[in-house]
Amino acid sequence: MIPFKAPVEDILTCLRGVAGAARLPDWDDTLTEEILGHFASFAEGVIAPIDEKGDAQGCRLEGGRVRMPDGFGEAYAQLAEGGWQGLTAPEDHGGMAQNAAVAAGVSEIFSGANHSLQMVCNLVPGAISTLLKFGSEAQQNAWLPRLAAGEVLSTMCLTEPGAGSDLSRIRTRATRDGDGWRIEGEKIFISGGDQDLSEGVLHLVLARTGEDGVKGLSLFLCDSDPDGERNAIAVTRIEEKLGLHASPTCQLAFDGARAELIGQEGGGLMAMFTMMNHARLDVALQGVAHASRAHQIAAAYAEERRQGRRPDGGEAVLADHPDVRRMLDTQRSLALGARAMAYLTMVELALGENRALVDFLTPVCKVFCTEAGITAADLGIQVLGGYGYLTEYRVSQTWRDARITAIYEGANGIHAVALATRGLRDPGGADAFADLVQELVGDDANGLALLSGWQEMRAEMGTDPLEKAHDFMMLTGELLFRALWCRIAAGGDEEHLRLARTVARRRF
Amino acid sequence: MIPFKAPVEDILTCLRGVAGAARLPDWDDTLTEEILGHFASFAEGVIAPIDEKGDAQGCRLEGGRVRMPDGFGEAYAQLAEGGWQGLTAPEDHGGMAQNAAVAAGVSEIFSGANHSLQMVCNLVPGAISTLLKFGSEAQQNAWLPRLAAGEVLSTMCLTEPGAGSDLSRIRTRATRDGDGWRIEGEKIFISGGDQDLSEGVLHLVLARTGEDGVKGLSLFLCDSDPDGERNAIAVTRIEEKLGLHASPTCQLAFDGARAELIGQEGGGLMAMFTMMNHARLDVALQGVAHASRAHQIAAAYAEERRQGRRPDGGEAVLADHPDVRRMLDTQRSLALGARAMAYLTMVELALGENRALVDFLTPVCKVFCTEAGITAADLGIQVLGGYGYLTEYRVSQTWRDARITAIYEGANGIHAVALATRGLRDPGGADAFADLVQELVGDDANGLALLSGWQEMRAEMGTDPLEKAHDFMMLTGELLFRALWCRIAAGGDEEHLRLARTVARRRF
Repeated sequence: MIPFKAPVEDILTCLRGVAGAARLPDWDDTLTEEILGHFASFAEGVIAPIDEKGDAQGCRLEGGRVRMPDGFGEAYAQLAEGGWQGLTAPEDHGGMAQNAAVAAGVSEIFSGANHSLQMVCNLVPGAISTLLKFGSEAQQNAWLPRLAAGEVLSTMCLTEPGAGSDLSRIRTRATRDGDGWRIEGEKIFISGGDQDLSEGVLHLVLARTGEDGVKGLSLFLCDSDPDGERNAIAVTRIEEKLGLHASPTCQLAFDGARAELIGQEGGGLMAMFTMMNHARLDVALQGVAHASRAHQIAAAYAEERRQGRRPDGGEAVLADHPDVRRMLDTQRSLALGARAMAYLTMVELALGENRALVDFLTPVCKVFCTEAGITAADLGIQVLGGYGYLTEYRVSQTWRDARITAIYEGANGIHAVALATRGLRDPGGADAFADLVQELVGDDANGLALLSGWQEMRAEMGTDPLEKAHDFMMLTGELLFRALWCRIAAGGDEEHLRLARTVARRRF
Repeated sequence: MIPFKAPVEDILTCLRGVAGAARLPDWDDTLTEEILGHFASFAEGVIAPIDEKGDAQGCRLEGGRVRMPDGFGEAYAQLAEGGWQGLTAPEDHGGMAQNAAVAAGVSEIFSGANHSLQMVCNLVPGAISTLLKFGSEAQQNAWLPRLAAGEVLSTMCLTEPGAGSDLSRIRTRATRDGDGWRIEGEKIFISGGDQDLSEGVLHLVLARTGEDGVKGLSLFLCDSDPDGERNAIAVTRIEEKLGLHASPTCQLAFDGARAELIGQEGGGLMAMFTMMNHARLDVALQGVAHASRAHQIAAAYAEERRQGRRPDGGEAVLADHPDVRRMLDTQRSLALGARAMAYLTMVELALGENRALVDFLTPVCKVFCTEAGITAADLGIQVLGGYGYLTEYRVSQTWRDARITAIYEGANGIHAVALATRGLRDPGGADAFADLVQELVGDDANGLALLSGWQEMRAEMGTDPLEKAHDFMMLTGELLFRALWCRIAAGGDEEHLRLARTVARRRF
């Protein structure tokens, strides 16, 4: 077992040196470092140590309620007590009003320490944004303080048995009942659909109020215990999964559950996108967290494990062997490059000055960072060899937990199609992306050559975009990754310079 | 749950059309088809159905003995009763004396149906070869009939806590004791180190009889129950693993266990290589089996699952979407191309006419086929999306079981180093490989261009072979894979022609 160590230095390097977080009007460099340092200690001391037990024990359904693994209740109580659930909530609702860059750093550390618990807790910032943007004043007053204090956690109820990537097939129905609404239908794959950490749950539910298709969908707020009584929402099962065993993935039956409309009737999808866009970047950060954690485990192991001889005849460790070094360097470059990508996008989103660029970057980030996490975890298993295949060193858990990130919040193939179609419809996004890459690579010849290859492919995307979507997404992510490495290397750090050279030689 | 269907047709296509199995002196086309057909029915009806239970239940250690999951004992009894354990044993020792190509087909089907049970049973053909080559007549008479009848299963005891990829560190010691030997030491990662399927176990143990390094190693035969009494071999633990839960990976303590020397003192490594070379091609076949099974599950699911609309407005299934089709085609081309590679190598090995070629092909096969299996399983998870992440459809089990194949029987990185160094020392192997590729690609321009790129890289391998080993292995495998697809497509089958075009367009 190699203890989790939060990568605070690397996060700060990316925020400061690559993402230009100082451009944010409310950026406070010292405070950011302090907050991340505090959370790192908490994650290392309280959240990470229960991750192994959570994986082994999993969640269980008892008398219709979800029971979390041992130790999760205590850890959550400390998390809420520390005010972490209110990190992004406005101060007048009891929050800490921190910006998205700080929240991203906290979220990455949280995911690296314990992805399952992060899953259950971290839909709250998205719920807060959604309520701030679409909720009535009464809804905000009722829910924001409770979310910020950790009294309630939240869910995002979209998927149904026949409607996953295709939300137009949603059949859950909401009908008026006096001043309120009643919801009837079945939702699946609901993370944290129930748990025994918080007093209650705020479900945000996408349901049909009108015509077929996505225009007939509205967003609802559904309290697990309105007026102190259980709402008509039953957990009908917890899924058995490859990983994330401590994150209860629930099937929920809404049987005339009381609900309130959020925003406009028929505006459900738009409201949901606020949550989903937040969630997508958060998933990208989960990918970064896994890449980083997998490298941490593999590097520590490879420095300890004796194997063979060095060219000078001395006893070698695993890390002395070129092929192992190659795998470690790949992990490290993926972790740092993906992190740079995620924080840059997060800062651009928070700045809000270039919406087209952010819309273009978001799917690229989601795909590249999640695949970086999975690849790095897979390399981690390989570096550890037979020990990587055992449960003991837990790098296989990193892979199992990471694997979902390429699937949820829009399967990566769906994002590739979105980029190749919607993402190119308005040239503004792709132009802004090209400008960004140009700025990052400067006069780097490899980078400029790749950019010009990308422009060629972009020009040809009008014909058969669906056939070319995957390759275009891969090329776009790779281009941005290499461009970011030019920027990282510009910082002059020795290790970064060496890694930048390996990135430039990547087979692609 | 999508039932396992043995890919008999595809195996025969590869044996006949690509590998040229008819070149084998004892090839019997009709009999091969019959044997594979019989085993396919047995695998589909008896072996595959217990795979899911085996994964869920795993093995357990009770009172120092390993208990296999429910149903495994009955299935093994039928396997032994059917004579399958003696498939390659000589007829005068009660075997069926079938050639390696037939045995390979049976082994692939076995692995696809239930990799765990295959692991426990399928070290026997290697033990039979080793005894035939190095065992005394008395040892052959004592053991071959029992192995062929399934009375005993066998293990390969190499790895120790400090000696995995580096066998020179082996510390288990054998000392003379009268006419025999006694073994003292600890072995880890021993597949089927104990089980309750067979009456006894024949352990083949690598132990030190002389100086340090690999020259002081000898091979021993160690009966689990000599003269009807338990030998001094204790199972000290079963490892908890990512996959292969129904294959007990044991830690064994030899505490003065009685043993017999096989072959010459100091000749242990050479004798072990007979087993290991057999095992490596068998592992390649496991990769093929997983690639094939993952495609089977994903294709069946994608044909059923409704999603979105086709361009003509009609209801679409998942398989209609270009990105899903891309993933399915990749799986299918990997499965069939890797299969062609494995059977071609197997037939060349059985022919025994071109030792240098076989030595060159074996590591390429091991690496390419195992990575094909893992990649195809990973794509299977992605095709199924959220359902791929659930345990229900079991494609995640395919990945978990497949993942070990890139690690055991020599980690893939070790094979890459071996190819880049030993594999190129004598130009005979690489020249024979180039001739083979030339013959397979014919006048295919892409294939010829890739071959010439490979020759260039080969010429540069003298400098920094360790640094370039990984890339050289990747290029060699890809070249052979594409060349084999030229041969497969030459058969004229419509689906094969389409897949060959996608292979030629592969990003590499």
